[in-house]
Amino acid sequence: MTQVKGSKKAREQLAHLGRDVLNAIQKGEAPKLKIPSRTTSNIVYDPKHRYYVLGTKFSLRTAASMKQVKKFAQLMCVADFAAELIERGKFATLREMYYTAEGWETGPFADQSESDLLVEDLEAMFGLKRENLGLMPEEDGAAVFGELVVQEGNVRIDATKAGRAGYTIPPTIDDVEFVKCKAKRVIAVETMGMYHRLVQEEAWKKFDALIVGLKGQAARATRRFLKRANEELGLPVYLFTDGDPFGFHIAMVIISGSAKLAYINHELAVPNAQFIGVTASDIVEYNLPTDKLRELDVTRLKQLLRDPRYNNEFWQKEIKKMLELGKKAEQQAFAKYGLEYVVKEYLPAKLGLKG
Amino acid sequence: MTQVKGSKKAREQLAHLGRDVLNAIQKGEAPKLKIPSRTTSNIVYDPKHRYYVLGTKFSLRTAASMKQVKKFAQLMCVADFAAELIERGKFATLREMYYTAEGWETGPFADQSESDLLVEDLEAMFGLKRENLGLMPEEDGAAVFGELVVQEGNVRIDATKAGRAGYTIPPTIDDVEFVKCKAKRVIAVETMGMYHRLVQEEAWKKFDALIVGLKGQAARATRRFLKRANEELGLPVYLFTDGDPFGFHIAMVIISGSAKLAYINHELAVPNAQFIGVTASDIVEYNLPTDKLRELDVTRLKQLLRDPRYNNEFWQKEIKKMLELGKKAEQQAFAKYGLEYVVKEYLPAKLGLKG
Repeated sequence: MTQVKGSKKAREQLAHLGRDVLNAIQKGEAPKLKIPSRTTSNIVYDPKHRYYVLGTKFSLRTAASMKQVKKFAQLMCVADFAAELIERGKFATLREMYYTAEGWETGPFADQSESDLLVEDLEAMFGLKRENLGLMPEEDGAAVFGELVVQEGNVRIDATKAGRAGYTIPPTIDDVEFVKCKAKRVIAVETMGMYHRLVQEEAWKKFDALIVGLKGQAARATRRFLKRANEELGLPVYLFTDGDPFGFHIAMVIISGSAKLAYINHELAVPNAQFIGVTASDIVEYNLPTDKLRELDVTRLKQLLRDPRYNNEFWQKEIKKMLELGKKAEQQAFAKYGLEYVVKEYLPAKLGLKG
Repeated sequence: MTQVKGSKKAREQLAHLGRDVLNAIQKGEAPKLKIPSRTTSNIVYDPKHRYYVLGTKFSLRTAASMKQVKKFAQLMCVADFAAELIERGKFATLREMYYTAEGWETGPFADQSESDLLVEDLEAMFGLKRENLGLMPEEDGAAVFGELVVQEGNVRIDATKAGRAGYTIPPTIDDVEFVKCKAKRVIAVETMGMYHRLVQEEAWKKFDALIVGLKGQAARATRRFLKRANEELGLPVYLFTDGDPFGFHIAMVIISGSAKLAYINHELAVPNAQFIGVTASDIVEYNLPTDKLRELDVTRLKQLLRDPRYNNEFWQKEIKKMLELGKKAEQQAFAKYGLEYVVKEYLPAKLGLKG
């Protein structure tokens, strides 16, 4: 198994961290660490980058404090575990690390949220994703179908020849090399129903597109894939979701990142991605089958109106219009006009490809 | 796109259904249909087959009843939709069919559960899966890694060369041909964390196994794949889940099917599959990190004790022991002894492959 890109940098930062701590001890000082604060007050929306980032606040963690020394030691163990993973070219899940800790000198964690937080500490300190520390997400990423050839270790995969269900983005996506790409754009869709519709109608050929099936809220690996497709391959990324607050949220987390992951959004957010999901205007224009907004939908939509990520003319207008209509619609609703309609009419119109 | 196996039989049964209805009308009689009852009282556990089946009760649906005529007409529309899908070599989701019905003469359904029930009627009448009627599940199946070569239409896929995330079982699994298989067994695991551990440790090579990542409760396509691997390829199937009531349930639904799908378990259940998941005895023997049973776990375990599928010595003993212990353990808990332990120790012991 080859090592993740970025893991070399991570290995250097881990060594640096170790040296700093050791130097302090040898000088007879208590080692201390500056850890970027991830409390709400230190999470800010950066309009220039168009995603959430951390502010400038830090907390200090020192081995000299009785209150902090255990956490300090545990952080050293986590760093050591990561260094070993990188050196052995291995990956582990956060869950596996949590269980591995049963054997550490610091003793087991009370629960996994404790060990997860220490990993976030390292991510925030280094400005690196935990994947670069050998810690992979449990879940696989999205399905991809289209003219893209990738290399994973010594295996080459053509995303038109991995089966109908497509090429699955692995948790270790940074380790995947883009070898060849004939596609000119990415169309990412919320549901696997729509993914299979687009594959079946050969939308990947018709639109020269990589079809990406998000499976709902996008996994970390998917977001990283979309960012790399956008930045490395220069492909515009289009997001086709349901016309409801959850669909908008799925798209916006891809575009602008989440507040929770502010410390790592520079590696995950795709601010240039474009929303082509179902809007309130589409509901009217296409006379789509709808469901009534539930109370929760209304609450969520009102929250979005005040969310800085939705602070532009398009979103303000469409969210208000949806609240007025009191209705939402799913992406599969276009089947009202036949299974092919979404590929023949809706997508060409949204992509500006209508002849 | 080629057609599903079984779709020829489905097409014939649809034509037969149409002829019967037409004949009745031409004779001046009201057409009527015998539909196998799927109420609880008609679902029985069959100890011979070792899965749930439908009993012998039927309900009659006739076009002569004012109360039933709409449902009768809707069923004809669903049958017609399925016939067209098969003829065009297409697939649609249940959701797409629900929306397509907006354009039918019978008018739209009040909600999707109505149209879904009509599809179940056809499945039960024909003894065929809805996939054979061109109606595919939304969700993809499990990930597969190992020495299996399959053919999907004109694409050939080697499940050791589809990427680290493996070959994804498509919703249209019946359409997939098994071309070559060097593996001698299937090891299906509950979590993707464990799937990636086994792929990383090359367990597929070590155990001559297809590694299947279930992603929790197995999708229909996964269950069908496991059944075909067991019956067509003659591979023993081993199920490695967490040691908790949900893990047991995941395994048992694969083995004996669910009561809800009694009408189609003969196409989905894998009664020969063997449970090698974490047991109460393993918790003690391996001194595993555990969590306390929650109240819900205790309730579920007590239900399992009375469930006919668990009515044998092994399950009765292990469930009682878990209740006594008051503890459960996850499959990743073996990481306590190092990331490789599960492959070096636990699995060889469970598979009887310990040298």
